[in-house]
Amino acid sequence: MDAEIIAVGSELLTPYRLDTNSLFLTGELNRLGFHVRRKHVIGDRDDDLRDVFLHALERVDVVVSCGGLGPTEDDRTREIVADALGRKLKLNNEILRRIQERFRKFGRTMPEVNARQAMVPEGAEPLANTQGTAPGLWLESDGKVVVLLPGPPGELQPMFSREVMPRLSRRGANLRLFTRDLRITGLPESDVDQRVAPIYKQYAGTETTILAAPGEIQLHPRVWSEDPAAATKLLDEMVKRFALALGQNLFSTTGESLEDVVANELQEHRATIAVAESCTGGMLAARLTNVPGSSSYFRGGVVSYSNDLKSAWAGVPRELIEAKGAVSSEVALAMADGIRRQTGSTLGVGVTGIAGPGGGTPEKPVGLVHIAIADEKGTKEREFRFPGTRDRIRHQATQAALDIVRRYFLYAAPAARA
Amino acid sequence: MDAEIIAVGSELLTPYRLDTNSLFLTGELNRLGFHVRRKHVIGDRDDDLRDVFLHALERVDVVVSCGGLGPTEDDRTREIVADALGRKLKLNNEILRRIQERFRKFGRTMPEVNARQAMVPEGAEPLANTQGTAPGLWLESDGKVVVLLPGPPGELQPMFSREVMPRLSRRGANLRLFTRDLRITGLPESDVDQRVAPIYKQYAGTETTILAAPGEIQLHPRVWSEDPAAATKLLDEMVKRFALALGQNLFSTTGESLEDVVANELQEHRATIAVAESCTGGMLAARLTNVPGSSSYFRGGVVSYSNDLKSAWAGVPRELIEAKGAVSSEVALAMADGIRRQTGSTLGVGVTGIAGPGGGTPEKPVGLVHIAIADEKGTKEREFRFPGTRDRIRHQATQAALDIVRRYFLYAAPAARA
Repeated sequence: MDAEIIAVGSELLTPYRLDTNSLFLTGELNRLGFHVRRKHVIGDRDDDLRDVFLHALERVDVVVSCGGLGPTEDDRTREIVADALGRKLKLNNEILRRIQERFRKFGRTMPEVNARQAMVPEGAEPLANTQGTAPGLWLESDGKVVVLLPGPPGELQPMFSREVMPRLSRRGANLRLFTRDLRITGLPESDVDQRVAPIYKQYAGTETTILAAPGEIQLHPRVWSEDPAAATKLLDEMVKRFALALGQNLFSTTGESLEDVVANELQEHRATIAVAESCTGGMLAARLTNVPGSSSYFRGGVVSYSNDLKSAWAGVPRELIEAKGAVSSEVALAMADGIRRQTGSTLGVGVTGIAGPGGGTPEKPVGLVHIAIADEKGTKEREFRFPGTRDRIRHQATQAALDIVRRYFLYAAPAARA
Repeated sequence: MDAEIIAVGSELLTPYRLDTNSLFLTGELNRLGFHVRRKHVIGDRDDDLRDVFLHALERVDVVVSCGGLGPTEDDRTREIVADALGRKLKLNNEILRRIQERFRKFGRTMPEVNARQAMVPEGAEPLANTQGTAPGLWLESDGKVVVLLPGPPGELQPMFSREVMPRLSRRGANLRLFTRDLRITGLPESDVDQRVAPIYKQYAGTETTILAAPGEIQLHPRVWSEDPAAATKLLDEMVKRFALALGQNLFSTTGESLEDVVANELQEHRATIAVAESCTGGMLAARLTNVPGSSSYFRGGVVSYSNDLKSAWAGVPRELIEAKGAVSSEVALAMADGIRRQTGSTLGVGVTGIAGPGGGTPEKPVGLVHIAIADEKGTKEREFRFPGTRDRIRHQATQAALDIVRRYFLYAAPAARA
């Protein structure tokens, strides 16, 4: 069965804001067995609203909109959809009471204008909003369904889960979308495609999408099926073959972030970590501490932009910096080992490089980054040349550093694994 | 004049990827005098492609699409649009030669399938692609314009600027969109609206959008005008009145990020800065070093998750942590002053708090963050209670910390301004 999503709001037609609700809605609709066939973004103009709803209803079984249910006059979705479907609006006293209640709770009187949000089209079911004033609406017309949801994601998402999901799941096809979320690092997109295309092409009836981000490739095999066991078996088999083709570059088959995977490894091996960063400027520490509970493995980090601080905080000998330069494999190694010793951690990581746009030379160009890892037995170092802007270079460097930690645990001797 | 944007690609109808080209295209079209009336996302299905192009052409003057020009069979935009407009496709030998050339340059032979990209509808003008193989296409039909662009932003953007902009600017209305980008912090969205709504409501013919992100509000007044001088004068006047209403909460009238503004202040006052972070885990240092040239003012930072490291790196007395707790105004103050002394910086910033989801207590709940700033004359501290998830709490804490530095320079005595 097919669905379309309509995002309503003039601000979504400016250069400043994207509709992001449709990602959440697409995921949920797919799980319920609905293909999303088109997405639309329209402003709050009456004729556009009417036109897009009526045309969508000609094509698909379910039309879901978000936005345009606010209290002010420029929010027109409720009125226009009611009119387009030939339904009169009636004041729902129960909803009105709830909105007034909500205002009272926050010590305010309900502005008159909010009464509009209690208007419900004939035959429509209001969908309770636990997080705001605007209720959603469920309308059925000629066997088709129209769902109107509020725009704020914090209101839309719980409303969808509590109110829309149970209603739609009774109507959805038995066909459901099954999918996997594989994450790869250390290979460019074209190499990933070359390795996996011969595999996914053998599976008729499945679709596999490759998405590239700096330092990370995502692979999403998908299959529509009425039989969960068969779909799971099929995807398991595909994932197994992808895993063989991708080797250790594959770091997750369940959509985890690289920092999540590294966090798991550290916790599993009861290891601790500390980092000394220069060009990444704190981003590596920020990613490591982005994981809840990171205080159990993350001891601390230093951002030593100046050479003095590389010496003071990470114990890098001043003469070494003078002899080899701050951006060198030797200094990266000394930073990794120094921060490990200073903090008493199992592992130390050192990152030094040139993020640009200035500061590059022919010998040490923008994008050159040295990353080192140290444990009690020794150190290892790798040199990278990352393309792109300052921000991309910094992000790729954190990705490479996290991957070095991940691979450490793949190779570490049991003794080093605590 | 009106335009619509069509993003083509089945991957844009998955839960994983958004069309972002439309933000760039909207900004460019607005500058050329075109309102964007609707945006569409469709897959690579023939009937959907045909239908959406033909309906858009009924409504607007210019239809711009992105995506679906690749070499493989599932990319259908070129063929379907040609067919819908009744144009035959012909091989363009000049384009074919250029694609072959491009492959040769990278040491490869052109795969046969790429020859499709050299097919041009009758009467269409190919748009040169300097960054990839797929040329764009410019078609005119009954006085209306259809522009087909490739999907990768790195190909689409230069093609738009070089090939589409000059052609469209000859056709655009004299009416152009003029806009400003104001940034506010320290006030919730509702307060911003309450202060600025009485102003923008007085300016008929203008539109003002308020966008909220954690710790930051954006305000975009916009006006369509044939007269650049009049529009500039009008927006200048609005911005002046907004500035009066918003006071020191307004940190940029030109769309700068808070770290850019702080970087400018630091450079202007020849001041240096160092940070000691706990709950923000390196995010504050990462934002400060996100600005090119930050090594001129950023000395360094420490992420001291453990109490030992708060003492070792930021000189926080161990007894103080024991007496007051790691999350306390006293420790924040000691971190700020300690890191300033350790690094010899003009300013030191200390951040300590509970980012959650665990670790909260009734007295010190998740979201409690203490932020302190120190200069050679003394210290100041503020306590915050941020709502939301771990990530939001951490982001809001960095935003508040940067804002404390910005406000320092508003209030600092000339002597402290180096």
